[in-house]
Amino acid sequence: VDEFGLIDAFLRPFALARDGRGVRGSGVLAGPGDDCAQLAPTPGLRLVATTDAVLDRVHFDLRRSSPEDAGWKALAVNLSDLAAAGARPRWFLCALGVPRSGSSAAAGSSAEQVARQMGAGMAALARESGIALAGGNVTSAEQWSLTITALGEASRPLTRAGGRPGDLLVAAGSFGAAALGLRILRRAPRRRRAGGPRSRATALGADERACVQAQVRPWPQVAAGLAAAGIARAAIDVSDGLLQDLGHLCARSRCGAQLDCSLLPRHPLVARTEALEAANGAHPYALSLSGGEDYALVLAVAPRRLDVLLSALTSAQVGWSVIGKLTTGRSIQLRERGRRLPLPERRGFDHLAPRQATA
Amino acid sequence: VDEFGLIDAFLRPFALARDGRGVRGSGVLAGPGDDCAQLAPTPGLRLVATTDAVLDRVHFDLRRSSPEDAGWKALAVNLSDLAAAGARPRWFLCALGVPRSGSSAAAGSSAEQVARQMGAGMAALARESGIALAGGNVTSAEQWSLTITALGEASRPLTRAGGRPGDLLVAAGSFGAAALGLRILRRAPRRRRAGGPRSRATALGADERACVQAQVRPWPQVAAGLAAAGIARAAIDVSDGLLQDLGHLCARSRCGAQLDCSLLPRHPLVARTEALEAANGAHPYALSLSGGEDYALVLAVAPRRLDVLLSALTSAQVGWSVIGKLTTGRSIQLRERGRRLPLPERRGFDHLAPRQATA
Repeated sequence: VDEFGLIDAFLRPFALARDGRGVRGSGVLAGPGDDCAQLAPTPGLRLVATTDAVLDRVHFDLRRSSPEDAGWKALAVNLSDLAAAGARPRWFLCALGVPRSGSSAAAGSSAEQVARQMGAGMAALARESGIALAGGNVTSAEQWSLTITALGEASRPLTRAGGRPGDLLVAAGSFGAAALGLRILRRAPRRRRAGGPRSRATALGADERACVQAQVRPWPQVAAGLAAAGIARAAIDVSDGLLQDLGHLCARSRCGAQLDCSLLPRHPLVARTEALEAANGAHPYALSLSGGEDYALVLAVAPRRLDVLLSALTSAQVGWSVIGKLTTGRSIQLRERGRRLPLPERRGFDHLAPRQATA
Repeated sequence: VDEFGLIDAFLRPFALARDGRGVRGSGVLAGPGDDCAQLAPTPGLRLVATTDAVLDRVHFDLRRSSPEDAGWKALAVNLSDLAAAGARPRWFLCALGVPRSGSSAAAGSSAEQVARQMGAGMAALARESGIALAGGNVTSAEQWSLTITALGEASRPLTRAGGRPGDLLVAAGSFGAAALGLRILRRAPRRRRAGGPRSRATALGADERACVQAQVRPWPQVAAGLAAAGIARAAIDVSDGLLQDLGHLCARSRCGAQLDCSLLPRHPLVARTEALEAANGAHPYALSLSGGEDYALVLAVAPRRLDVLLSALTSAQVGWSVIGKLTTGRSIQLRERGRRLPLPERRGFDHLAPRQATA
């Protein structure tokens, strides 16, 4: 693997080059091709910064999904954090980890091909979101990894703190589909290796394909965050499971929460799966409450501002659901059409716990 | 390994906590403990951003140096890029990769201990440099890794472009010691495992210890970069070997260069080692020209501004050496007291090449 060839391959889908030529993004005064990027922040706005990594066999799996998907997801999970701050995405930097045996993981492709495909998936989402690649790094590593730092701007960013008892909880996005999609992926045959025997294409139904898509190409709720900025009192993006992340919002806002599970937006296949498994003794909302990787946004809003928020979300063409409220105390309680439900045993995702079966 | 315990351990040396309490750095409106950091850029300055990763067994080796050293180096290599832009360090984010078998790599320590020690080494350099930790991420990984994005500010950042034929080349820092230090480390016994047999302490001389220090605790030339901003025409930090990185500066500045090797600042042990190996047919400046990881700064300055630059460096208590000049053409030529020298075969470090013996 040649370092500079690989960098060129990765940059090509962004219409950038290592020598500094190419179409720079808005506010990028110098980008890839120098020691540092030079950026022009908007006067009067706060800079909002986040970093998040995705790794092969941890957050994606090149045996089961494509390098394009991995590139997309790496940027999506960072955009989701900007969304939670109600920030406008501006610039990002991407550090790539490339295995010395670059070809082995990705169905017989060369490391350069994999890098180009990762760049292509990432560039597609970057264009959709109006965020510009401003710099990066490449190093050899034991596994493919993409570590992104995303920068955005906001006049008054949303945080996890600021919610108060009585605030309503509004969700943008849905719950459980990504975790179910991971399960579907894991039981599907691996991707065909170039030159290897052709595996029989597994016919996934449209519902299953939608859940797989939620897993491999999560959609960050940037539009929802921008619409909610200045209206909502607190926000968090749901990456590690609704219960766990809502718990973080409650802790920082010093309150508890009550969720009505029957109001949780779920893909029909998630609802059917949860109902089937509840018949076998599982929690009836196990996937939705603890599945993780939803990248939905949960907003806390004062009751008198609810209408304003819902109008703003609707104007931004964002689907929303009122799913519960913040309460006094510190615990999270579940309801289902008024009836009390117990909490599931598993609350969410611990990034360092022994290997977990997601859901 | 518990994710939140590990984050707390890493944050402690920074006097920060996951719940958002602690002493925030200058311009940090919200830091660790939320989805995003909130930062207040200085009006009128450009934001300068860079990302760089260090990984176990690639850029450090927990069998041979300490987690504190790894934490220090992770930040140092990023500060070196800010130095090359002449930027004042402001904020950084750090993404940690933690092996599930966190204990194995680091002489019997727990992953939490390793994270705390990495944080301690990083926090020590952060304090020295006036840069504030603003956010981060933790994920499981095959190997320990630290990926940092550093943000700085400058009114007119230095870049690799802008040098012109006739400009003088001025170095801050020295060459070859880090590569020699790596060699010394590799032939020293591994660090003692807790509970294992005590290895005989190898008595390194002061010269050897200094070279090892250059390898495991590189010193970023931030003061030199700040002093040179507005005076030098171009700059680059030397991470992958002087010849290779000077080549990048030449390419972006569209010129060539001539170095007088006898002027290269070298540790006496580097000079002795190079002389010994030259007697066996090696290039007489192999370590200094191609060793890598020097994190020296090379500045190009117009001849009529040389005195101003050297005064500014001296005032900032930065040692400097005039080592050559930029030329017309595109090649790099070597001299030794006027006599022409050939280029060494190995020019520098390729981050993705099959494992290299550094020097």
